[in-house]
Amino acid sequence: MIIDRLKKTVDEKYPICVGLDTALEYIPESLKGDSISESVFNFNKEVIDGTKDLVAIYKPQIAYYEALGLEGMKAYKKTLEYLRDQDLLIIGDIKRGDISATAKMYAEAHFTGEFEVDFITLNPYMGFDSIEPYLPYIESGEKGVFVLMRTSNPGAKDLEDRLSVSDGKTLYQAVGEGLVKLGKDSVGETGYSSVAAVVGGTSIEEVGKIREEFPSLFFLVPGYGAQGGGSAEVLPAFNPDGNGAIVNSSRGIIKNHMKYDSEDVKKYSRLAVEEMIEDLFKE
Amino acid sequence: MIIDRLKKTVDEKYPICVGLDTALEYIPESLKGDSISESVFNFNKEVIDGTKDLVAIYKPQIAYYEALGLEGMKAYKKTLEYLRDQDLLIIGDIKRGDISATAKMYAEAHFTGEFEVDFITLNPYMGFDSIEPYLPYIESGEKGVFVLMRTSNPGAKDLEDRLSVSDGKTLYQAVGEGLVKLGKDSVGETGYSSVAAVVGGTSIEEVGKIREEFPSLFFLVPGYGAQGGGSAEVLPAFNPDGNGAIVNSSRGIIKNHMKYDSEDVKKYSRLAVEEMIEDLFKE
Repeated sequence: MIIDRLKKTVDEKYPICVGLDTALEYIPESLKGDSISESVFNFNKEVIDGTKDLVAIYKPQIAYYEALGLEGMKAYKKTLEYLRDQDLLIIGDIKRGDISATAKMYAEAHFTGEFEVDFITLNPYMGFDSIEPYLPYIESGEKGVFVLMRTSNPGAKDLEDRLSVSDGKTLYQAVGEGLVKLGKDSVGETGYSSVAAVVGGTSIEEVGKIREEFPSLFFLVPGYGAQGGGSAEVLPAFNPDGNGAIVNSSRGIIKNHMKYDSEDVKKYSRLAVEEMIEDLFKE
Repeated sequence: MIIDRLKKTVDEKYPICVGLDTALEYIPESLKGDSISESVFNFNKEVIDGTKDLVAIYKPQIAYYEALGLEGMKAYKKTLEYLRDQDLLIIGDIKRGDISATAKMYAEAHFTGEFEVDFITLNPYMGFDSIEPYLPYIESGEKGVFVLMRTSNPGAKDLEDRLSVSDGKTLYQAVGEGLVKLGKDSVGETGYSSVAAVVGGTSIEEVGKIREEFPSLFFLVPGYGAQGGGSAEVLPAFNPDGNGAIVNSSRGIIKNHMKYDSEDVKKYSRLAVEEMIEDLFKE
């Protein structure tokens, strides 16, 4: 199961995910190429080269690439190729969610071909039949998904926290229970399933409660850094043995050179990761 | 407001949306070009040319284009250009939903530049702050959104129908109320807002109830044809005056030539639309 490979990588490095949310204005002159796709790729390469011995996984946010049109999609493809060629793990942050026939096409789009990644993020609003088409790829051991459960944005309370009359559970709890069921045939040696969840690190009590209730779900934890979460918000996402989660930071890492008014993306993205390790994982 | 333009187009033609969910296996030999993007575009052009005097709007489902990699995205861009050049309205069926910073990038991606469309579909799971970044484009009158509310797939009942303790409303009702609020500054002359909703046509009672409860929301109604909905399921989505909705059909229209073992996509997509008009809008 791919989740075992993620766990092994986390053990060798740190449970950190670097979000490659690359906007043109982050790219210094010295990294600009002859085309937009080259510039974006050059930038991502610096971030990857600066951090790959420290972090478990990379997460390009596809919105930033779509915003640049075909050139952006070229940069997305090239970035994925660069990561795959070095056996670095990738989450495609695409948050798709659609009816079964369409979900099959999204699975083909992001689990095979030019945009192939190891994990994708999904949105469960339309119900569990919108996630089932991905299961063949997951149960074969090749791929995994992180499904939105309790997210880190302020608006998460609007719908995700709604308590249901039928079972006294919140919407995100209902999603969590559904994910445990969907993931029962893709549990790896580590006890975690390749059907995993996105649980935001911006509320301490919430995250700790969710961790206790769903010990077997692996969590991708956004919200650290630029979104306002610190170690107190993020660490409750881990199980008592220190496993079961990866913490994402995007802008906090890839924009760090701008804080220092430097063009050295490699150096300052690495520095941001080192500071994150210091903050989160060293006493 | 763009919703007024849609209403005007519906009045001139029929309240039908053609889903351009183009898979390679639908494309007859005679339409194949030198590249995948050419083949897909040739096919879409035939469908559009065969139906454009009858239908109000087109809805390419981006999953089918992503599944073909960069060539697919080229076909997506070329199809949008062809539609825009003739002032035909477009819904980009992308069902995105993400935190505010990312939503801004999606808005840039699909409301400007190479992938520009008139409307996009959105997923509300993460809450209303995931929809707000689109409002400037909407309130300027230029653009609109169809947000998932009650969808047409069987799994819709898993989460969308959950009744909340706090207000005694289902999740989809809470979404509907949120959309009415978000849309209050983009109500057009027709009384409908450019913040619109996706309401599936596969359950008669449900759709009728939703129509009564939200008279000012404009609905995009999937589920007709290949998904199993007929006129009985779809017509309750309209207000008593016959306004307020467009009905989508995708595979039922663009695969119709295959039913006749023909390569004449233009003729048979038109025939499918004519039959849909007969079924839905003629006594």
